[in-house]
Amino acid sequence: SVLQQREAHADAMNTLKRIYKAKVRPLEQAYKFSEFYASELTDGDFDARPFVLLVGGYSVGKTSFIRYMLQRDFPGSRIGPEPTTDRFLAVMAGRPGQADGVIPGNAAAVDVDRPFTSLSRFGISFLSRFEVAELAAPILDNISFVDTPGILSGEKQRVERGYSFEHVVEWFAERADRILLLFDGNKLDISDELKRVIECLKAHDDKIRIVLNKADMVDPQQLMRVYGALMWSLGKVIRSPEVLRVYIGSFWDKPVNPLGAANDELFKNEEADLLNDLRNLPQHSAVRKINELVKRARLARVHALLVNHLRASMPYLWGHKKKQERLALRLKDEYVKVQKAHGLALGDFPSAEKFRSGLEAFDLSEFPNLSKRLLDVTEGALSRDIPKLMLAIGITAEETGRAAQADK
Amino acid sequence: SVLQQREAHADAMNTLKRIYKAKVRPLEQAYKFSEFYASELTDGDFDARPFVLLVGGYSVGKTSFIRYMLQRDFPGSRIGPEPTTDRFLAVMAGRPGQADGVIPGNAAAVDVDRPFTSLSRFGISFLSRFEVAELAAPILDNISFVDTPGILSGEKQRVERGYSFEHVVEWFAERADRILLLFDGNKLDISDELKRVIECLKAHDDKIRIVLNKADMVDPQQLMRVYGALMWSLGKVIRSPEVLRVYIGSFWDKPVNPLGAANDELFKNEEADLLNDLRNLPQHSAVRKINELVKRARLARVHALLVNHLRASMPYLWGHKKKQERLALRLKDEYVKVQKAHGLALGDFPSAEKFRSGLEAFDLSEFPNLSKRLLDVTEGALSRDIPKLMLAIGITAEETGRAAQADK
Ligand SMILES: Nc1ncnc2c1ncn2[C@@H]1O[C@H](COP(=O)(O)OP(=O)(O)OP(=O)(O)O)[C@@H](O)[C@H]1O
Ligand SMILES: Nc1ncnc2c1ncn2[C@@H]1O[C@H](COP(=O)(O)OP(=O)(O)OP(=O)(O)O)[C@@H](O)[C@H]1O
Ligand SMILES: [Mg+2]
Ligand SMILES: [Mg+2]
Repeated sequence: SVLQQREAHADAMNTLKRIYKAKVRPLEQAYKFSEFYASELTDGDFDARPFVLLVGGYSVGKTSFIRYMLQRDFPGSRIGPEPTTDRFLAVMAGRPGQADGVIPGNAAAVDVDRPFTSLSRFGISFLSRFEVAELAAPILDNISFVDTPGILSGEKQRVERGYSFEHVVEWFAERADRILLLFDGNKLDISDELKRVIECLKAHDDKIRIVLNKADMVDPQQLMRVYGALMWSLGKVIRSPEVLRVYIGSFWDKPVNPLGAANDELFKNEEADLLNDLRNLPQHSAVRKINELVKRARLARVHALLVNHLRASMPYLWGHKKKQERLALRLKDEYVKVQKAHGLALGDFPSAEKFRSGLEAFDLSEFPNLSKRLLDVTEGALSRDIPKLMLAIGITAEETGRAAQADK
Repeated sequence: SVLQQREAHADAMNTLKRIYKAKVRPLEQAYKFSEFYASELTDGDFDARPFVLLVGGYSVGKTSFIRYMLQRDFPGSRIGPEPTTDRFLAVMAGRPGQADGVIPGNAAAVDVDRPFTSLSRFGISFLSRFEVAELAAPILDNISFVDTPGILSGEKQRVERGYSFEHVVEWFAERADRILLLFDGNKLDISDELKRVIECLKAHDDKIRIVLNKADMVDPQQLMRVYGALMWSLGKVIRSPEVLRVYIGSFWDKPVNPLGAANDELFKNEEADLLNDLRNLPQHSAVRKINELVKRARLARVHALLVNHLRASMPYLWGHKKKQERLALRLKDEYVKVQKAHGLALGDFPSAEKFRSGLEAFDLSEFPNLSKRLLDVTEGALSRDIPKLMLAIGITAEETGRAAQADK
């Protein structure tokens, strides 16, 4: 059942969190992983439910879509024909028994139990445009939503936001399990601004689905023209040959508009497909988090071996600085040495630029000796604990395909 | 009425033919226009009805489409689930009282009363794969059709045809008033071979319309997927931002398939739109032929002035060859001189390569003196006869927009 599945996933993420804390984080800390690559994972990163990011022009019905999914109003939302939503709004389940409410972005970003700490990098003017709505709604037990301000075109866009809309969308896109790109079937508009945002999302195009909303506001022939024009343009922006899945319908609680009634059956089927996709997100999310931890642990291992190798090439007492600089220059050769010595995959190595710029902040000789024990512990997580966890939640061979690919 | 309109167009084309013969061709002949640019226009070029070129993969229903438009079988046609049509087939009205029949390509290409004389450049192996079917059917009084062999993909394509399929399609595309690119909604296949053919048609993308045929063979949701995928891919191949018009339906005489019955109304409307488009072709065709003659007459005039200018720069008795070569080298400068002296548009000038290579075959000094009279006659056709003709058949300002553009 859905309930059992949800608990199984929560259990799995708790296990993953324990594996990280006990078997990966110590190695990371010993070799300053977070100062080279990415900050330490917080509880929030593991506990957060998968979330759906909604992106699109203004008034396409993003906020209404979330309302429809929740089957209720939610605090902090406003719906209207003019540009209304003026902030990013994470819509999530409150703690059991807690009253519905809105938490300001500043408060949400300092809470390590929430997955928003790294949003602080976008500064105060963004955080004052960010909120977390907490409320009770059945669907929120499984997934969260992130509502965003509608993308304006031309003149309107120039009103300064005080933060980079695109960078913030990218931050959310990276962490989202699904990105819904909404369009209005009644008023198709693919502005240059929207195209730029789509460009930012391209790295995550496997997560993107299109929603052609308000599809009942036009007659079937017009719908075909609008839909055709949408695909024609999207195919040019998103250069991948694989066609993005589009869900065509009208995602709010009003009855179908008579103009589009001939497509009623189609809309119903499309909605069922979309709901089914969202229903599967928790499973996808678990797979994704596991895959990401696998990649991270592999990088932590390579990083430790790399640092140790370079350290061992240092003379004992003087000339450190110079030698270190020389080593940094011929990093690629050193990569190959380490790779051969330990039978590693070159694909697991960090980009030379990233490693070199991380290195600049440190004196190699100050890193500790290689701890065989720490390495073995992480190795154990990769070869035993994580595979066991995957089996436990029934992740199929197909789903771990990507992890296996990274493993080559 | 349709009948009156048809006669008006026939009259207009007869007038245009007379203008050409009396007022443009003499200037062309005096300065060997046809040996520089394009062969002389034949009666067939003026008399031919507008025609629709059908292009697409094999078994998408091209031949069935023509059959459906004619509402009858036609000689030379074969319909079947395997690649069937193995030749180009022009389907046209026979002369009044004439029996239905098929004329072999070789015969058709030598008849100056038909618009096929320049097809002989593709050689005997093409002509043996070309036929003209002549028969009586109401729609043929207004337009003709050209059926083509289905485009095969991969291995199958390699069976040598003995002529360049793409060049032949280009020849027809250049002369067609409408190009219908057919796809099978039940089996969408945009092969590399098809993409290459579409590339060839791109210069004429204003003439292209898409037909998504057999659209009732799939359910409405699948139709949306297929149609979306088609637009996604076509937008990439045809790089224009303007979306091509697609007609979605099932173009044969069988009743609608129950699977797609929910779209019955859509299909009916789409078919009505397509028929309407075809109905307007005679008017379009008249506009196009007039525009083309305008362009041609302007080029003939420039050509005469150009030849005369270069001729005047020749010394009297010796050194011709050398001087002529030198002139050919700095053609651009000479263009500007002629342009300024006669207040011409640079856009009316031939490409330097074309003119230079034409020139190689001649001795400039052998061209006649500039005939002011011939020039004035052609000038009169451009400034009086053709505008009068346009007025007579009610060509609107919008329709002559392109001609006006070329006029700038
Ligand atoms: N499925 C629908 N069909 C028709 N109208 C809709 C639909 N969904 C929403 N609307 C209407 O469209 C307008 C905009 O809706 P909404 O505020 O949800 O859009 P939005 O994308 O959140 O806009 P913004 O970017 O300004 O926040 C409202 O008037 C709403 O009632
Ligand atoms: N609208 C339609 N719906 C379903 N089937 C169709 C339709 N039109 C044609 N067919 C079937 O598709 C097959 C191919 O038809 P047809 O021979 O007209 O295609 P074609 O494009 O001319 O093929 P080729 O390129 O081989 O000449 C035939 O079996 C025909 O009966
Ligand atoms: Mg909104
Ligand atoms: Mg055929």
